[in-house]
Amino acid sequence: MTEQGGVPRHAQQGGMKTVLAIDIGGTHFRLALFDSEGRRLETSEGDTSRSGGREWMLEQIRARGRALRAHASPPAAACGISFGGPVDFRQQRVTSVHSAGWRDFSFAEWVSSNLNLPCLIDNDGNAGALGEFRYGGGRGTESLVYVTLSTGVGAGVILNGKPLRGKDGLAGELGHIPVSSAGTACSCGARGCLESLSSGSAIAQRGRERGWRPTPGLAGEAAGDALSRPAGGQPAGITAKEIAQAAARGDRAALQIMAEAAGWLARGLLTVIRLINPDKIILGGGLTLAGPVLLDPLHQSLAQLASPTIGYSTQIGTAELGLDSPLYGAAALALDLLPAKP
Amino acid sequence: MTEQGGVPRHAQQGGMKTVLAIDIGGTHFRLALFDSEGRRLETSEGDTSRSGGREWMLEQIRARGRALRAHASPPAAACGISFGGPVDFRQQRVTSVHSAGWRDFSFAEWVSSNLNLPCLIDNDGNAGALGEFRYGGGRGTESLVYVTLSTGVGAGVILNGKPLRGKDGLAGELGHIPVSSAGTACSCGARGCLESLSSGSAIAQRGRERGWRPTPGLAGEAAGDALSRPAGGQPAGITAKEIAQAAARGDRAALQIMAEAAGWLARGLLTVIRLINPDKIILGGGLTLAGPVLLDPLHQSLAQLASPTIGYSTQIGTAELGLDSPLYGAAALALDLLPAKP
Repeated sequence: MTEQGGVPRHAQQGGMKTVLAIDIGGTHFRLALFDSEGRRLETSEGDTSRSGGREWMLEQIRARGRALRAHASPPAAACGISFGGPVDFRQQRVTSVHSAGWRDFSFAEWVSSNLNLPCLIDNDGNAGALGEFRYGGGRGTESLVYVTLSTGVGAGVILNGKPLRGKDGLAGELGHIPVSSAGTACSCGARGCLESLSSGSAIAQRGRERGWRPTPGLAGEAAGDALSRPAGGQPAGITAKEIAQAAARGDRAALQIMAEAAGWLARGLLTVIRLINPDKIILGGGLTLAGPVLLDPLHQSLAQLASPTIGYSTQIGTAELGLDSPLYGAAALALDLLPAKP
Repeated sequence: MTEQGGVPRHAQQGGMKTVLAIDIGGTHFRLALFDSEGRRLETSEGDTSRSGGREWMLEQIRARGRALRAHASPPAAACGISFGGPVDFRQQRVTSVHSAGWRDFSFAEWVSSNLNLPCLIDNDGNAGALGEFRYGGGRGTESLVYVTLSTGVGAGVILNGKPLRGKDGLAGELGHIPVSSAGTACSCGARGCLESLSSGSAIAQRGRERGWRPTPGLAGEAAGDALSRPAGGQPAGITAKEIAQAAARGDRAALQIMAEAAGWLARGLLTVIRLINPDKIILGGGLTLAGPVLLDPLHQSLAQLASPTIGYSTQIGTAELGLDSPLYGAAALALDLLPAKP
């Protein structure tokens, strides 16, 4: 390590560096500066534009990333990215097929060139697992599985303190384990995957299939929060958030939809316990904001599925870092790029 | 390491030691001497007596173990045990609840006292995985999952060359992942477990439920092997072996039963691929002797379940060591107890 920019050597070695963390999700993106202890210093965030595509997002990252870098003191020394979709970690490339323009994009290399920072990228499941392991509810554990419940379902596995990646970088693809033989179509093209039954998309889809609508008169009253009604109030516009909010207000059909999603999720989590038996399972992602209408039936279903002869002590809880687990994981990826402290 | 029994120090250090390996299965047990390169030197085996219980088995081990030890030259220096049921590896105790007298038995300690050898015990899934990893089809891999298909279904997971044990020592409990919501009763007391659908017991149970009997006239002719008919030819005595043999001769009902078991197994293996994504999955246990009538529909089901967008390169094959994978794993456990070579 050499001295740079007049910063005294002891200050650098004492951890006086910052890193840039980027979290790209399907609905929201965040950039933030972190110090070398994993403390967040400053954030820049916005809603993801689906129509804007890759070029729009890259322009956001370039502009906001440069602005954050300009504020960074001491200077940012590395960057980490959490991407809400499949990533080939070895090749450091996005492999998403769902979002136009991202497939086979060397995102980390682009950041290195455009923000002049060494960079590592991983998917949001692995990044969320790393974030919780270093800075959240996974501190002090040896193994954890972080489950992201959002538009889709994903997971990251940490064993002996390190991410499990697998032969094809696919370890932790919890969203695509086959849990139902009834054959619900999944976004991956297969049938009966956990994602097709327990994700935000699946909950919204069940609502649409059943012609669910928010109960008239209850909307926004009991809970005090206005529903963001879709244009024209058509069932086609129903979101998982609306269904979760209605369930919290006691809407029976909505409660039923949430309980069904939780029941399938319980099968997924029990499968994780049987195969990996981690110290903790940590639930993250926007769907966890549904709270008891998701978590209560989840624990009831786990109790129903339990074997009277095969107990386990794996704990199940929600993310301590809330929706920021992948962002903190991106910071951890960046910090791991820095030279080790002496 | 000190010199013992007049054996020159260089001979000991050069790997001139033997170990005793013990494999206790539900229907068969084996003891064998191995040299320090993992070569089998001598075997003593017999059928497990269910009515004899623990004391009968211990007497077999004491007598046969002492006889093998007497032949061992150079002397046996350690012992490893593969046990066909739940084992608490940390406590080195059997935790089986199915076999009378074994629960909480400190089997390794008993061997240490009675055969005067340091000893380690593990369940047959983990032992089989270790055996294949060191001496079988898993050589050269970084990660594998060994699946034992026998009276029950179990598995052992090797990651970065080491067994994954999990918080409660339950990692790899593939037999008890919930795969069906139809609710077949499992020996563990839960419902819909893989073991209740894909094990030898499950195959025999399906045969009994459907009043299956070997097709008259076909028995023993086409395949040239005599069926071991149950007394009186009652369906209650039907075994998975009979059904597999009849399937091999073209019995349609038997083929259907085997295909159903294979279909559920495919869901289990795809789940392993999604969560762990190992280099290899190795199928072992007596049920693999069924051959194509199990493996062909297994691969067909895997192809049907596949996602067109999420490929994988995990290989699926059968155990190179045949039914001996757990015995070789027991030898590996014992060899790991010896001082490292210089």
